[in-house]
Order: sequence, then C-alpha cells, then structure tokens
Amino acid sequence: MYKCSQERMTDMIKTFSQYGDAGHGGITRYSMSPAAIQARKEYEKRMKAIGATIEVDDVGDMYATIPGSDPDAKRIVMASHVDSVRNGGNYDGILGVMSAMEVLTTIVKENIPHKHPLTAMIWTNEEGSLYPPAMMCSGIVCYDYLPEEIRSGFRYDDMMASKSILDHTSTFGEALAKSGYQGDKKYRLSPDRYKCYFETHIEQGPILEDNGNDIGVVDCVLGMFNYKLKFYGQTTHAGTFPMPKRKDAFLAAAEALAYLHDEIDKLGYPELVYTTGEVECHPNVHTCVPDYFDFSLDVRHEDPKVLDKVMDIVKSCEKQTWAGCTCKIEKQWNRDTVYWNKPLVGYVKEACEELGVSHQYIHSGAGHDAQFAAYVLPATMIFVQSKNGLSHCEDEYSTPEHCTEGASVMLNAVLKADKED
Amino acid sequence: MYKCSQERMTDMIKTFSQYGDAGHGGITRYSMSPAAIQARKEYEKRMKAIGATIEVDDVGDMYATIPGSDPDAKRIVMASHVDSVRNGGNYDGILGVMSAMEVLTTIVKENIPHKHPLTAMIWTNEEGSLYPPAMMCSGIVCYDYLPEEIRSGFRYDDMMASKSILDHTSTFGEALAKSGYQGDKKYRLSPDRYKCYFETHIEQGPILEDNGNDIGVVDCVLGMFNYKLKFYGQTTHAGTFPMPKRKDAFLAAAEALAYLHDEIDKLGYPELVYTTGEVECHPNVHTCVPDYFDFSLDVRHEDPKVLDKVMDIVKSCEKQTWAGCTCKIEKQWNRDTVYWNKPLVGYVKEACEELGVSHQYIHSGAGHDAQFAAYVLPATMIFVQSKNGLSHCEDEYSTPEHCTEGASVMLNAVLKADKED
Repeated sequence: MYKCSQERMTDMIKTFSQYGDAGHGGITRYSMSPAAIQARKEYEKRMKAIGATIEVDDVGDMYATIPGSDPDAKRIVMASHVDSVRNGGNYDGILGVMSAMEVLTTIVKENIPHKHPLTAMIWTNEEGSLYPPAMMCSGIVCYDYLPEEIRSGFRYDDMMASKSILDHTSTFGEALAKSGYQGDKKYRLSPDRYKCYFETHIEQGPILEDNGNDIGVVDCVLGMFNYKLKFYGQTTHAGTFPMPKRKDAFLAAAEALAYLHDEIDKLGYPELVYTTGEVECHPNVHTCVPDYFDFSLDVRHEDPKVLDKVMDIVKSCEKQTWAGCTCKIEKQWNRDTVYWNKPLVGYVKEACEELGVSHQYIHSGAGHDAQFAAYVLPATMIFVQSKNGLSHCEDEYSTPEHCTEGASVMLNAVLKADKED
Repeated sequence: MYKCSQERMTDMIKTFSQYGDAGHGGITRYSMSPAAIQARKEYEKRMKAIGATIEVDDVGDMYATIPGSDPDAKRIVMASHVDSVRNGGNYDGILGVMSAMEVLTTIVKENIPHKHPLTAMIWTNEEGSLYPPAMMCSGIVCYDYLPEEIRSGFRYDDMMASKSILDHTSTFGEALAKSGYQGDKKYRLSPDRYKCYFETHIEQGPILEDNGNDIGVVDCVLGMFNYKLKFYGQTTHAGTFPMPKRKDAFLAAAEALAYLHDEIDKLGYPELVYTTGEVECHPNVHTCVPDYFDFSLDVRHEDPKVLDKVMDIVKSCEKQTWAGCTCKIEKQWNRDTVYWNKPLVGYVKEACEELGVSHQYIHSGAGHDAQFAAYVLPATMIFVQSKNGLSHCEDEYSTPEHCTEGASVMLNAVLKADKED
C-alpha cells in the first residue's frame, strides 16, 4: 500500500486557501475570476514541476498528465474543480484537485510503477455561482452522452451566452476568452483517450462524522426532482382590509410548507431529504398583503418509487385552497439516480480496507461533475469526512489527516484500476 | 345644500388618469416624475382658470387659494397628493386633489358666499414610492409639531438625501430642484395662516361597500406598530444534510407565522388587522437550507391596550425555538391613534345627513398626510367607497357618483367650518 504525504497536502490546503480569501476563513473564487486564475497557475506550476504535460480544452478544462509504461494505454483521470460559491470554504472542489495532484506527485516522487497515463484534471465552472448553471463545463463536454432530459440545458452556445448574476451583462464566453484558458476542443475528456474517472470530494454532510468513519465509498448520486410551488392571492392594504376577507399568499405558502413537512415525514424514509431554499414574495412591501409567493422544492432519494410518493404529495397541493389562495406547481427539472461503476467502487472499498481507514458506503446527495462523466466513462467518487456536515459556507472543514487519507485511498484505487487491461 | 358637478368630476378623473398611464387601467406616477409634473400643470391650469392664486413651498407642496369675504380670515385647506405607488390606481391621492379643486370650482362658478379664503393643496411625495419614506413632505412641513418618536424620521436634510429605490444614486433633493417646483419655505402650511384641514380619500377597504354606505365619516387614524421578526438557522446543502439535524430558517418563520395567526386571532378583536407583507430569505438558493429569514409585521388597532396584547404575543416569539432556529424581534416604528377634530367630524356627518348620502363612522387604517397635519391644525377626513376594497393596484375603483358625493360632502362641511370665527 502506498500513502500520500500529509505535509504536502497541508501545504496545498494553505496555499490554495489564499486564492480568493474573503478575509474570514473562507473564499469567494468564481470560475474565471482572478482568484480562480491564480489557483490554475498554482496547479500548472506544481504539475509542471513533476513533469506533467498540460492540455486545456475549449471550455478551459485542464488536464495534467504523467505517462505510464504502456504508450498505447488510455488515461485514468482524477478530476474536480477550483471554483467556489460566494463565501464558500477551502475544501469543496479544490480538495479533489489537490488530491489528484497529490496522487500524481506521490507516484512520481516514489517512482510507483503504473501502466496507464494518469491525469489530474480541473473542471471549469462546476458551481455556476457567477455564470449559471452548475456543472456547466462537464455538461458541455459530456453533452452528447447525457440523457435527453438533461442535455438541452448544456448547449455550447447557450452556455457561452450565460450572463453574470452580478452585472447581468458580461457572459461566461467573454470571461473564458479573456482568461487565456480557452484551449482546443480535441483535448476534451472522451472515451477514446480516457479509461475511467475518479473524483474525491468532501462529504458536505454529517453522516461520516456521526458514524465515526473517515472515508465514504460512494455508490451513487441520488435521484431528485425540483419544483416551484406558486401561490396566488390578492394584494390589499395593510391598514384597511379586514382579516377574514384577505388572500395572503405568504400565509398560504407557510400553510402549504407545514403540510408538506407533515405529509412527507409521515412517509417515514429517513434517507429522504427535501429543501425549500428559495422564495419570492410580491409585491414584498410591508404595507401590502402579498398577492404572490413561491418557493422551490428540491427532493432527493435513491429510489424513484419514493420520489413518486413525494411527487403525489406535491401534486395534491394544487387541489387545495391555502388561506384563500390558489396553488400552481411547476416542474423545474429532475434526474434519475446515477450509480457508480461497480468495479471502481470495489477498488475504493478495497483500498480503504487495505489502508485500514474507517469507511462506509454512502450516497451522494449533492450533484458533481462525476455524474455527467459517468455517462461517458466508468466513474466513481470518494468522500472525505466533513466537520459538522457544513459546506458551501466558510465553516466548511476537513482535517488534514482525513484529506490525506482520501488522497491515499484514491491513489491505491487508481493503481488497482491501472492493473486492468 | 350645494352639490358638486359629476360632469366636471368625471372629466377630471379621465384627464388625470392619463398622466402616468401604465397601459392597463392604472398609473405609475412617482413624485417629481414627468407624469407627476403633468398632473401638477393640469392642476395649475384648472386653478388659474377659476382665479386661484398659486403658491409653492420649499418642498414642492402647492397651494391654490381663492379669497373669502374677510381679508383677515385664515384659510381653510383641502389637501391630498398626486403621486402614486408603482402600478397604482386612478383614485388614491388624486381623488382628494380633484375633490378640493371641484369644491373651489363649484364655489366660484355658483358664487357661493364664504368668509375664509379656501385652498386646494397638493402634498409632495405622499407615497414615498420612489424616494422613501411615505408622507415625506407632510413630515417635513409638520416636523416641529410631530411627536418626538416620529419626528426624527423627517429631518429636512435627510429627506433631501433620500435615494431613488431604482438607481440607488439620484436623490429626492435633486429631483425636486430639477422639477421647477421648489418654492419658498414661507408658504408652508402653518397655524398662522391656516384655520383647519380637510382631506377626502378613497377608503381602500371594503367596509363601506359591505355596509352599503357611500361615504365614511372618518374619526381617527389607527394606532400601529411595525416589527421585523428575524430567524437564524444554519445553511447546509440540500442534498447531503439529514432532515432531523437541519435548522431551516424559512420553516422556522412559517411556524412562527402560524403561531402568530393562532394567538392573535384568539384575542378576538374583529377590527384588529395585521400584515406580514415583506420577507427576506438568505442565501435564497434552491440547493441551500436557508440560514436566515425575516418578515415584517404591521399591526393596527384604535385601542393601545389591544396593541399591547399583540405586542406580548410578538415578544413571546423570541423566547421560543422554531424548527431549531432562534428568533429576534426588532421594532421598526409605532404611532399612536390620531383622532380627528370632533367639530370637523361633526360637520362632515351633518353634511352627509343634509345631502341624504348614506354614511357611517369609520377608522382610517391607512396613514395619510392628514395625520401629520392634525398635529398642526384641526383636521379631518372623508372616505369614498372603494369597489371590492382594492387599492394600491390597478383594479382600484370608485364610481363617479361616489366621488362626486365625496366632494359635495366636503364642500358643505367646509362651508360649515367657514361659519366659525
């Protein structure tokens, strides 16, 4: 068994945390921002130092590759992203890139024999925080392989025209062109040149920590659906309109939210998660009864039959009157559960066992570039324990020990995959 | 008894509805906008045509005055505003200005004897829709007379610096200077030159219509308080964080809203109104559990003891945990009930009786410039029936018959006040 270097991992965490440092423990590192470009330059510097060859595809995805003993063998790729959400932490995304770099560095420094070329890859704009959508560039690159219901959301021209959420004018295409990281389409991840795909990521949840396990052997990305629930009432004046005649859309939404929690919780599936994170209120004036309120509903579970049961509850909202208001539901998107490649999952589990690292099977509730890569190549993921389950916030944390363990597990799993033809 | 002209009233409603016409039945006529200036020019034209003298004070308030038989008598003023909310209707504010003009016009045309000079007045920026706050210029003008807890909100320099809610840069002071309607401070409404104050307004609620009455004899503006209720949770990822460990600030707010409705309704005061019209959700992203949610609470009732009981319920929210979240409450402002001058209220009621107009006593739930004027002069208001109680929206409507009745009631009430010394 080989082990990665905690010293190098600690140094990388410290170094990359500077790029986009927001001043209170976390980072804001939008894709193609100066901070993201600093992170790319650091990756280039480190990868060139171990003799890796760097390729950049037409959407800025970067591939640092060291050769294997078989010049005809396809590459094994380890990927993640360097961009973050606004006021995010120092681990989401970047840990997977650092882990991939650390695997290559260990292999080069310790001269570990391997047959296939090995690639440490950066996906561009995974978060989609400045230029939506999330997983933009894995979507573009894997486009032809994606299922029909997802594909149309990632058309190249549409993605290049994606507007900044800050100035509503500048586009992702402009930022990409200006970045100097617009390379050649021929370098895109493809089954012709690549054999299989690994991605290491923080768990972003509390399950590993609660169970006392360092590493998650990820078996799938949960299926999900996303709806908008819209409530229509009547605006009236706060001071002049008697209570019994009001049609308050905010009150309607609050009642429906309580109903959803009651009914969904009654189903009794402990692994089911659902989130109502985004709201809109109109006219949103303190002296007016709201005539419109909507909220998003994001529901995730492995089993499509469970998702169907929740969907029935959501649909029943439309048939009811809420505080005198009507309700309309609107589907935003859905995705089926994506299962990782069984042999690769097995290699990750074996690597944990052989390294003596505490581990468990776990589902990924979050979406990752890996789920799009999985339509193109055999793919899997490795999760590293998150402190308190926090992510997408500055308190996001994983210990250097756990981060290094994650890289060591990936190293040994990659070497197992390397032994295949 | 004298009566106003429905023909002239109908013509005025039609004419003023053009200034700021939003194209689907209503208007957007922000104070000092080109549309508001058109309305001011129309008022000037019509008032000059009946021989009125026009004065403009330093904040753009306009005073069109016809002389009375006693050159030393103080003026009786009838006032309202020409500005509207965004996508407002054709009656809120402007009806009071049209009624005041119609009273003067009837008196001049029919040569009705009267002792006191009579003034039809426009208050600048009552809505505060573009440049907050509402009732800005009555606040500035009545400043020295306002109660301590209200006064500081209307300092002249602060008001001139009030920024546009659209561009966040241009100020009310700049718009006023550019409008050409910045006159002389010496013309401000004051007890030295004015005797008493009338304001006609649409009801903005359904009470008159429900009771089959055309006119409301207003006795007071309801006391109120305004709070913000803030809920603090923890942002976590929509896909990765188990339900029982979440601290969802939106769910917390929804639970507290249900609690407020239950507890306040249990008090059993049918005239009590409370509104939660404005919300904020953070980070307001569909894949994040909200870590912060707040909503406004506006509560109105004549009796301060009733308001105190509601306040106790609001305060009890802070002592509870809502969906794992904490709650903080923050007072925004309050005002005591403002009672209209009893003799003036009596004149309005007598005028209704003598004209044979169906009427009732009614409270004003909404705030009006009249409530600030009431600290300076004896003041009262007249309400005109609103269709379906709708206001601050394009469906706002009052019939020409009811509008004309309102003006006739004001005309006769003013003539009764005119008989005083």
